[in-house]
Amino acid sequence: MLNLDELDNIYETNKEAFLQDWFQFLSFKSISSEEDYKKEVVACQKWLESYLGKLGFKAEVWETSGHPVIFAKTPYEKKDCPTLLFYNHYDVQPVDPEEEWKTPPFEPTVVNGEVFARGAQDNKGQAFYTFLALAHLVKNNPDLPLNIKFCIEGEEEVGSYGLSSILKEKKEDLKCDALVITDVLIPNIDTPAITLGVRGILTFDIEMIGSNSDLHSGCHGGIVYNPIHALVELLGKLRSTKTGQILVPGFYDGVMPLDEEEKKQFDLSFNEKEYQTLFAARPCGGEKQYPPGDRVSIRPTLEINGIKGGYTGKGFKTVIPQKATAKLSCRLVPGQDGKKVAEHIKNFLSEYCPEGIQLSITPHHGGNGVRANPNAVVAKSFSHAFEQVFKKPTKNILSGASIPIAAEMGEILDTPVVLTGLGLPEDNIHAPNEHFGLERFKKGFLITALAAQEFATSQIKKEVPCD
Amino acid sequence: MLNLDELDNIYETNKEAFLQDWFQFLSFKSISSEEDYKKEVVACQKWLESYLGKLGFKAEVWETSGHPVIFAKTPYEKKDCPTLLFYNHYDVQPVDPEEEWKTPPFEPTVVNGEVFARGAQDNKGQAFYTFLALAHLVKNNPDLPLNIKFCIEGEEEVGSYGLSSILKEKKEDLKCDALVITDVLIPNIDTPAITLGVRGILTFDIEMIGSNSDLHSGCHGGIVYNPIHALVELLGKLRSTKTGQILVPGFYDGVMPLDEEEKKQFDLSFNEKEYQTLFAARPCGGEKQYPPGDRVSIRPTLEINGIKGGYTGKGFKTVIPQKATAKLSCRLVPGQDGKKVAEHIKNFLSEYCPEGIQLSITPHHGGNGVRANPNAVVAKSFSHAFEQVFKKPTKNILSGASIPIAAEMGEILDTPVVLTGLGLPEDNIHAPNEHFGLERFKKGFLITALAAQEFATSQIKKEVPCD
Repeated sequence: MLNLDELDNIYETNKEAFLQDWFQFLSFKSISSEEDYKKEVVACQKWLESYLGKLGFKAEVWETSGHPVIFAKTPYEKKDCPTLLFYNHYDVQPVDPEEEWKTPPFEPTVVNGEVFARGAQDNKGQAFYTFLALAHLVKNNPDLPLNIKFCIEGEEEVGSYGLSSILKEKKEDLKCDALVITDVLIPNIDTPAITLGVRGILTFDIEMIGSNSDLHSGCHGGIVYNPIHALVELLGKLRSTKTGQILVPGFYDGVMPLDEEEKKQFDLSFNEKEYQTLFAARPCGGEKQYPPGDRVSIRPTLEINGIKGGYTGKGFKTVIPQKATAKLSCRLVPGQDGKKVAEHIKNFLSEYCPEGIQLSITPHHGGNGVRANPNAVVAKSFSHAFEQVFKKPTKNILSGASIPIAAEMGEILDTPVVLTGLGLPEDNIHAPNEHFGLERFKKGFLITALAAQEFATSQIKKEVPCD
Repeated sequence: MLNLDELDNIYETNKEAFLQDWFQFLSFKSISSEEDYKKEVVACQKWLESYLGKLGFKAEVWETSGHPVIFAKTPYEKKDCPTLLFYNHYDVQPVDPEEEWKTPPFEPTVVNGEVFARGAQDNKGQAFYTFLALAHLVKNNPDLPLNIKFCIEGEEEVGSYGLSSILKEKKEDLKCDALVITDVLIPNIDTPAITLGVRGILTFDIEMIGSNSDLHSGCHGGIVYNPIHALVELLGKLRSTKTGQILVPGFYDGVMPLDEEEKKQFDLSFNEKEYQTLFAARPCGGEKQYPPGDRVSIRPTLEINGIKGGYTGKGFKTVIPQKATAKLSCRLVPGQDGKKVAEHIKNFLSEYCPEGIQLSITPHHGGNGVRANPNAVVAKSFSHAFEQVFKKPTKNILSGASIPIAAEMGEILDTPVVLTGLGLPEDNIHAPNEHFGLERFKKGFLITALAAQEFATSQIKKEVPCD
């Protein structure tokens, strides 16, 4: 067994090579949502496949309808030893508005101990310390009674279509005793926490057409129904400005509140002052009847993520555009049925669409919410590892974010799940100037190795040591 | 005096050269709203100044705070003869969305007798037949008792700031017996009409800020107030979806209805079937209690001309943006005070802006509405000229569009005004694929020459012929 000091020593000895390799991983523009970047996604996947081989794992590629999945594992199966499956993704979000980046998004730059790059945290940073930790754990402790598997997809940021479609067929390959999803946050830099729930997600594209061409607002203003007006009027009906509630009938159907036991185990606290300092924003969005900590974890939301119509450049253009568009997403909590929520929203928008306007709604692939068991061995192992590294008790938290594939993998593989990671709310993931701390990268390495060791030796498979 | 056949003959003889020169004028990217095109605006101005000289006029350039004004006139003043002042503009609207143009916007292309180019109609087409008509009228009828002046600005599409600021100082130069603004439409290809009113205009930029950065909708959804939600909710309050009325208190203050005499003289008819065929749009925007013909001419409007926030590219990005923006414009009718309307709108938006959102409203330069006298000599001259060319009685109409400088010039120069032109509602001005017909270009040439002749000989200045 390796103790914390030994692991620390391994990290410090190899640090330079670790960072060099990580920065190379970050330099790939593996933006999954944009067709133009397909080549870069493939280049990233090929590089990572080869790199995992160099780390001592047996890696293979699973083709899907979209970007491929990399599957890797320890080369020789240790029979009757437990198996941990790690989920990560090598794709990243787009970078726009690019002009707001202070350093080039695909040229990792260290400023005050933080690495700035698209994917620095989500998920290339968190993935990379996971790979390194497990490779060096196996290398330095070859007799560890543990099988390790990795499932690393390239479409997390666009709904995990490809992995989702092959999950059942690959069930035997992915068989494990627990699933670890390293893609989440701790509440702040000093607070160790593991995540035992994520919200589900549902996304839509909405288009409203008013005519067959952009029209002059002088010659047509007052005659034609301006589709931007129609759009703001329709979207304005979705939420009560007064209470913050979503007004779509059926939207909250099935929402599961926490029971008394869960209330004790989950920490939903929220630091308003800290939030205001970090984001220059007061926590006054969402349902006013719930505290912010509830609103971002156990309550569903509906957000407009994008809106566009007419002339938006410098100066002015008095146009009534042909069309106006918006992107909507919902975060779902356990108990809600994503398919039904999608229907409710479609019906609501169709019902209130004004005459003279052509409405189209395109729903995309989503995923339900997850709530995991804090008493599972894998949860306890990570909880203890966090505690050792931070020298503080670990909190059990629920994340407001979504890992669309998490619920599906947990269900199909029928396995306990824990969500872990060392992201911070201020890392600017999905935004310009994403970053991840070198100190946290190291802690991630230490925690992953410690947790895997504890899980291996918890002998959940059998009572005698592995051979 | 030149009759219609003689003028027709002059046109046909010179046609090729006319079109060649016009197309050169159209090839300048004189987009006044975009700083990047400043050089092209200047190039266009220099070319036109020199071209007017070649046509026999004495041209000079008036520098302004913005793009310069070209002032030109017949070289020798005929004392005691009436003076006609023609207003046009050499600047054009931006071209985006550029991908929707079927031919390059600055390479004039003739398809089925229509010239496709940015500015083909608004205003380079209408300006150019005016220049040609008057030059060839003077050339072929040198004894005509008429002085001609041109005031051609480069900022009509951005609010005429420059011309507006020098109008009083140039009052003596611009002195005239009537002002002709050649920048408007006829109702359809078979209907001759002169325009005796335009609406005023008022424009705003609106920005709503929710935080100091784009935020992830999972980690922040339910906490922060999404500025896109704030924007759609706020803009959604401006109009009653049910009645189409603008709900800003004071918005309609002072609106002058037509009196009984005006109702007889102005044609506000509207062909719904034709409109639907042309634009694939039902006339169901605006105030439901008024017919479409009223709504687009004697009623004020408020339109959202642009809206932008969050991610609007391909695929999806679950962002809560830092800010969301919109562009608003109002069309004003005589009786409304633009400054007061601007105050009312600012107050309304500020009052309903939700807590947690930082709102900024930037109003721009505008202009009031105009309603002119149908019995003025200049109006009668153009009315008769249209009738001669179309062989049909000419209608008196009111335009819904705005010539921001029109009201100001009419007032400062204290002169009768007529608005004329051969644009059609389907010319796509301010939109992709703007076009203007060759047949209409020719008719514009004939009408302008005939009207100027009639005005010259109406002897409004004195009872004896000019020397």
